[in-house]
Amino acid sequence: METVERFIDQNRARYVTQLCDWLRIASISTDSKFKADVARAAEFVASDLRGIGFRVEVFPTPGHPIVYAEWLNAPGQPTVLVYGHYDVQPPDPLDLWVTAPFEPTERDGNLFARGATDDKGQLFTHVKSVEAWLKTEGKLPINVKFLIEGEEECGSTNLDAFIRSNKERLRCDNVVISDCSQFAPGVPAITYGLKGLAYYEIFLTGPKQDLHSGMFGGAVANPANNLASIIAALRDAKGRVQLHGFYDDVVPLADWERKQFAELPFDEGSFKKFVGLDVLFGEEGYTTVERKWARPTCDVNGLTSGYQGEGAKTIIPSRASAKVSFRLVPNMDPLKVTASFKQFVESRLLPGIQCEIREYGAGPAVLVSVDSPGVQAAARAVETGFGKKPVFVREGGSIPVVGTFKRELGVDTLLLGWGQNDDNLHSPNEKFSLADFHRGIRASACLWQELVQR
Amino acid sequence: METVERFIDQNRARYVTQLCDWLRIASISTDSKFKADVARAAEFVASDLRGIGFRVEVFPTPGHPIVYAEWLNAPGQPTVLVYGHYDVQPPDPLDLWVTAPFEPTERDGNLFARGATDDKGQLFTHVKSVEAWLKTEGKLPINVKFLIEGEEECGSTNLDAFIRSNKERLRCDNVVISDCSQFAPGVPAITYGLKGLAYYEIFLTGPKQDLHSGMFGGAVANPANNLASIIAALRDAKGRVQLHGFYDDVVPLADWERKQFAELPFDEGSFKKFVGLDVLFGEEGYTTVERKWARPTCDVNGLTSGYQGEGAKTIIPSRASAKVSFRLVPNMDPLKVTASFKQFVESRLLPGIQCEIREYGAGPAVLVSVDSPGVQAAARAVETGFGKKPVFVREGGSIPVVGTFKRELGVDTLLLGWGQNDDNLHSPNEKFSLADFHRGIRASACLWQELVQR
Repeated sequence: METVERFIDQNRARYVTQLCDWLRIASISTDSKFKADVARAAEFVASDLRGIGFRVEVFPTPGHPIVYAEWLNAPGQPTVLVYGHYDVQPPDPLDLWVTAPFEPTERDGNLFARGATDDKGQLFTHVKSVEAWLKTEGKLPINVKFLIEGEEECGSTNLDAFIRSNKERLRCDNVVISDCSQFAPGVPAITYGLKGLAYYEIFLTGPKQDLHSGMFGGAVANPANNLASIIAALRDAKGRVQLHGFYDDVVPLADWERKQFAELPFDEGSFKKFVGLDVLFGEEGYTTVERKWARPTCDVNGLTSGYQGEGAKTIIPSRASAKVSFRLVPNMDPLKVTASFKQFVESRLLPGIQCEIREYGAGPAVLVSVDSPGVQAAARAVETGFGKKPVFVREGGSIPVVGTFKRELGVDTLLLGWGQNDDNLHSPNEKFSLADFHRGIRASACLWQELVQR
Repeated sequence: METVERFIDQNRARYVTQLCDWLRIASISTDSKFKADVARAAEFVASDLRGIGFRVEVFPTPGHPIVYAEWLNAPGQPTVLVYGHYDVQPPDPLDLWVTAPFEPTERDGNLFARGATDDKGQLFTHVKSVEAWLKTEGKLPINVKFLIEGEEECGSTNLDAFIRSNKERLRCDNVVISDCSQFAPGVPAITYGLKGLAYYEIFLTGPKQDLHSGMFGGAVANPANNLASIIAALRDAKGRVQLHGFYDDVVPLADWERKQFAELPFDEGSFKKFVGLDVLFGEEGYTTVERKWARPTCDVNGLTSGYQGEGAKTIIPSRASAKVSFRLVPNMDPLKVTASFKQFVESRLLPGIQCEIREYGAGPAVLVSVDSPGVQAAARAVETGFGKKPVFVREGGSIPVVGTFKRELGVDTLLLGWGQNDDNLHSPNEKFSLADFHRGIRASACLWQELVQR
């Protein structure tokens, strides 16, 4: 390890140069104008891994290619699959960038560029750590595979099918993803829980066209009023979800979790300031962190009905729709939620109102035991790389591919975020701390060693 | 009267020719490209009334001119003010018109043109009836004034101020408006009640920007959920409005009204077909006609929040807004409704949610006693002109100027609709039955006689 670590320290500048070369490629996957750039970004990482000594294949898909790489010369040792993505979010609005999004620039110890943290910079730590091992020791302590997609920012359209039809190729003992954040600067974290998601759109139709609200008011059911009643009934005044059986399968927070969450340097004042609210709101009996990370929720994401221009238009709308999503916690079954939701909505339709419910994906929550050998190994690696024991955190968001790995490959994912919450991913002036980049490479190099079968 | 009626019968063809000349002028008040045409349409009716023997003034306004005309040579007799408008709706979509909107065409006994019924054709019946009197008898049995605006289709922006500052000039015993419909073909009607309107928009603001619903869900109040709860609470499951004191001042329907409404040839099957619903919905204990005409209502007219595009976007919206309006029945005070509504909304805000309520006008309902001499005179005139006793109907819509006349001049309005419900006003292929046009002129001529002080 010492040689490896020395190599990493000595090559610090070159890593940044290489990352900058990759960041200069505008691999915007949502915009077909950038298709060639996306392909170039795939080739960049494929070629780098090839040079390092990995066997690399680039699989075309109906969308952007998937880069697969493997080094499997550690017989008897575990196999880790590193997942990441080489595509980036569009950089708009461009005028808010201090320096151009595809001209990486260093300021105050940070590298500013689209993709700096999400996910080229974070993923590159693992590429450079395996390089360090192979360049110094000539081998890795375990078997390592890379699965790097180019469609993460546009829905990962072709990823699930690829995983399903390449189960043997992708077989592993753990997945590693570095595509999230530390808890705070100086507080490295391992994310051991993610919420699941069940997302629906309700379309209600009443009269066949918008009607004059004077001539027809009082005589026909109004789909917008009906929609409001349905949504209102979804939660009680305290924010508890009212779907039948919604909380039945919820696993209560463990005492150690509540204790650890309470000890985190979470500043409710800063949080309020960030969201622009003087007062927060959520389920009774839980702290803000607990609500965010570990309690199921229901939120309206969009409402549409009738006249939306300025001023008054006296109509009864023909249609009304709402996007409604639930965040699920471990052990909740998205299919049960879907069934319960449909029954809930359909039983509340006013006379004459027709209903269509569209499903926009439902996936379960993820919870990895912090006592598992993988998480414990990762914790030691993070401590070595970052010089501090990581905290164990959960996340209110969902990373659908983690569910896919669990379902298709039967393995847990180690979520090792090297970023910071204020890295502006998906926003102008995306950045990545160069110190964290360096620490991430060290932690990654250490991880391969820690995962060795003892 | 016999001479007058004969004159009307003999001039039937000329009336149509003159109306067509007026209809050819595209007096679209909302579109500034047509400003000259609007002015020409004003001049057309001003000049016609001048030729008939009225003293006419055309008052410029910041928008389109107001035509005022008077014939006041019946001392000791009542004065009637005829209100109407010479402007028309835009004709779009043009491709749905069978014949061009400003090229009046006769088909199946109907005259097709924009403005045929709304309101040039209906208003012209009164112009031609006073002409018939003056051309035959050399005088009118009562004093008649005309107030004809050119901004009815664009909000009557300058009308109220004109009425307020010309109270003496406009002084009268009754207003007459022919800008609505008969109950059905062969069922002439006098509208003795209109609903009032109180229209609001609620703007709720939560977090200062849209938030990730995974990262922030459960921790902050969602303005769209809050909005839905407020709207849902506005009505109970049976459609009864829940504002404090909402029904306190409502005058119950009289027995004779319920009886007469029940006897009207209202076909619920056709009504359902028209609105495209198999089943209707409304306040319990009332028929569809009673709900439409005589019960206060609450409807959402528009909803806006968050993501409205296709598919899923996982946000907690920063803002949510709803347009909500109440239709008021006689004796309800719009100001009390406004106060009650504000209190209702503001008492239901979730922690952290800010609220702004905009008012888009509030006006009371109108109810004229059917036993009043004016209504009774009108009923006799309609019976003479149309050969059938009129039915007495109410209307769920509002005609704000009727409230203005009541408030500023202290007089009731006689609403004498010569049109039909399927005349396509505000739609392509607007039409007016030529038989109804002729009957309207006869009824109008008779009305002046019936209103004579006995």
